[in-house]
Amino acid sequence: MSKFQARVLVSLRPSVLDPAGEATRAAANRLGIEGIEKLRIGKAVEIVIDASDEDQARKRLEILSDRLLANSVIEDWTLELSSCSSNDIS
Amino acid sequence: MSKFQARVLVSLRPSVLDPAGEATRAAANRLGIEGIEKLRIGKAVEIVIDASDEDQARKRLEILSDRLLANSVIEDWTLELSSCSSNDIS
Repeated sequence: MSKFQARVLVSLRPSVLDPAGEATRAAANRLGIEGIEKLRIGKAVEIVIDASDEDQARKRLEILSDRLLANSVIEDWTLELSSCSSNDIS
Repeated sequence: MSKFQARVLVSLRPSVLDPAGEATRAAANRLGIEGIEKLRIGKAVEIVIDASDEDQARKRLEILSDRLLANSVIEDWTLELSSCSSNDIS
């Protein structure tokens, strides 16, 4: 079994409003931070998973992302996967 | 002025408990997804910013991250910055 490090990025679909992001952008303007054109807040899920190979890890993470991490009605997700030595894991 | 695409990843500090992540890990187990050793949920903030150069963009984003995006008592943040053509922006 190998360990894989994964990051699933869950973001609101472009057509879905992001009031928290808009509020943050307005607050940034009030703070004097100029030039912010777009600001959208999503989730970043950091995962360490044990699997026999990268294919198996990817399949498990795709099920996890589809079924638990993202609400597919309003959210998209992308998966970044890399193998790692046990030293990388804190 | 150039446009820069940035992603700020905000994660709970390692010493801070993540009940939402733990609940998701338990739910994954019940769903039959095996091998998940660690699962922690953070924020991913996608930003497009106008600035004269990369240094200026980075400085503004560092202030934004420190003051608005992360709660430095319990969270760490990392910044990924790249320049982008206007075609990349949706």
